[in-house]
Amino acid sequence: MFASITILGPGLLGGSIGLAVRQRQVADSVCVWARRPEAAAAACDRGAADRAEPDLAAAVRAADLVILATPIGAMPDLVAQMKPALKPGVLVTDVGSVKYPVVTALEDLLGDAAGFVGAHPMAGSEQSGIEVARADLFEEAVCILTPTERTDPAALNRIHDFWVALGCRVRTIAPSVHDQVIGRVSHLPHLAAAALVNAVCRSDATMLGYAGAGLRDSTRIAAGEPAMWTEICLENRQEIRRGLDELIHELGQFRAALENEDAVELKALLNRARHYRNELKFRV
Amino acid sequence: MFASITILGPGLLGGSIGLAVRQRQVADSVCVWARRPEAAAAACDRGAADRAEPDLAAAVRAADLVILATPIGAMPDLVAQMKPALKPGVLVTDVGSVKYPVVTALEDLLGDAAGFVGAHPMAGSEQSGIEVARADLFEEAVCILTPTERTDPAALNRIHDFWVALGCRVRTIAPSVHDQVIGRVSHLPHLAAAALVNAVCRSDATMLGYAGAGLRDSTRIAAGEPAMWTEICLENRQEIRRGLDELIHELGQFRAALENEDAVELKALLNRARHYRNELKFRV
Repeated sequence: MFASITILGPGLLGGSIGLAVRQRQVADSVCVWARRPEAAAAACDRGAADRAEPDLAAAVRAADLVILATPIGAMPDLVAQMKPALKPGVLVTDVGSVKYPVVTALEDLLGDAAGFVGAHPMAGSEQSGIEVARADLFEEAVCILTPTERTDPAALNRIHDFWVALGCRVRTIAPSVHDQVIGRVSHLPHLAAAALVNAVCRSDATMLGYAGAGLRDSTRIAAGEPAMWTEICLENRQEIRRGLDELIHELGQFRAALENEDAVELKALLNRARHYRNELKFRV
Repeated sequence: MFASITILGPGLLGGSIGLAVRQRQVADSVCVWARRPEAAAAACDRGAADRAEPDLAAAVRAADLVILATPIGAMPDLVAQMKPALKPGVLVTDVGSVKYPVVTALEDLLGDAAGFVGAHPMAGSEQSGIEVARADLFEEAVCILTPTERTDPAALNRIHDFWVALGCRVRTIAPSVHDQVIGRVSHLPHLAAAALVNAVCRSDATMLGYAGAGLRDSTRIAAGEPAMWTEICLENRQEIRRGLDELIHELGQFRAALENEDAVELKALLNRARHYRNELKFRV
């Protein structure tokens, strides 16, 4: 599908892309670059790439496809640095969890130097790093593509086929819609899980000794990498703030039902939640 | 350990107790009673009991141990009805998720007619019914016993050994402390999950089509049985309201950090959450 793919940032997502590309023979060769050369070497050792290249320009020079798998805050600088070395006709995609500000910035930076299509493979977890990368990470995962009016349709098709080749179910929406939707279904749940475990533990962390599977599962994502999530949440802060307001409103409804000892209202709220959650069960 | 055990309410918990008791040979015989005779018959078919008895008095008459596994709201009436049929020296335990009001009511009702020890095996799930009962449900599960000053120490020891025989890790705390702790680690997470899925879906339920494993896991418990959870939440409403206030406060801190674009504060909140969540990982 591609002669040469270069992955910038071989962590959980970047490393898993390399493993999947090589296992599924999506490209003839895979190169990785990382800010720390030992991280790129570790990705090679894991089998995520054929070679590691410590120099960014050298890493991208031969690539037909460059995949940005670094934290989103690092992407604009990397794109500016690599741009002079890109070959004509190269495609660029990314794995960032926030799209509108990132896509806008990268399109502005790249101009006509590359065909850029923003992507968000929803396959992360609370873990991070090349150690937990897996060739099957993307199987059945939703990957959202976020083309804009500046996106070349041929580039969109090739990037679509690339993510499908990795096993993803691909959907396509505008960057701003992505941020609205993902603010609700991914970023808000992250902060809700973090706030919940903080609320449970702040007065007395020994309570965790009595926790069961419910608290365990409902707060799993709160173990995610704080620096990465700080960046994500600040980039998408407006949507997440709206989501937090809605969540606080919903919690207030439960609180009022308890205060009023209103069994009918409480059961109606719980019935609605079960209905939605059962919908979700058939989709994820 | 017991000659004859009777289980009232063979659902997920009651049915699993029956399966575990028979598999581990904790009793010579197991009898089940259910409000609907066909539910008791289904429990026998699943192998959770030797016999089903539609008459409550007949079901408990020979028992050395009676286990209340019905919804908590049904327990006082059942205890009042069965009391005249109990044999001397009988022990009674339960599986209710709220303890102070339940234990107080049942101790008052039983008086000296039985040795009662409240229990809360933390082994439920969002599913319910005899269909999902399993003999290994209690393996490694925490079971909290809630003795009071009225509890006979010999009865406490036998009930302790019973739950250990089913595979539980037993802990012992006062009923009111139980409700405070479980209000935080179980009841609050349930309402948090329900409020979260309601917040995500209320404006646009098609958003669920973009959900990943994070939302799936963090809202799993919201699929729990609404009638049962309504009862639990109302019984423990004071503790849960305090927990909701704390959760709303924590969410407000995230909201303020986003509003102020305060990366340092946001990361500190996320770091605290990850620290607590990693503590939890080693305990559950």
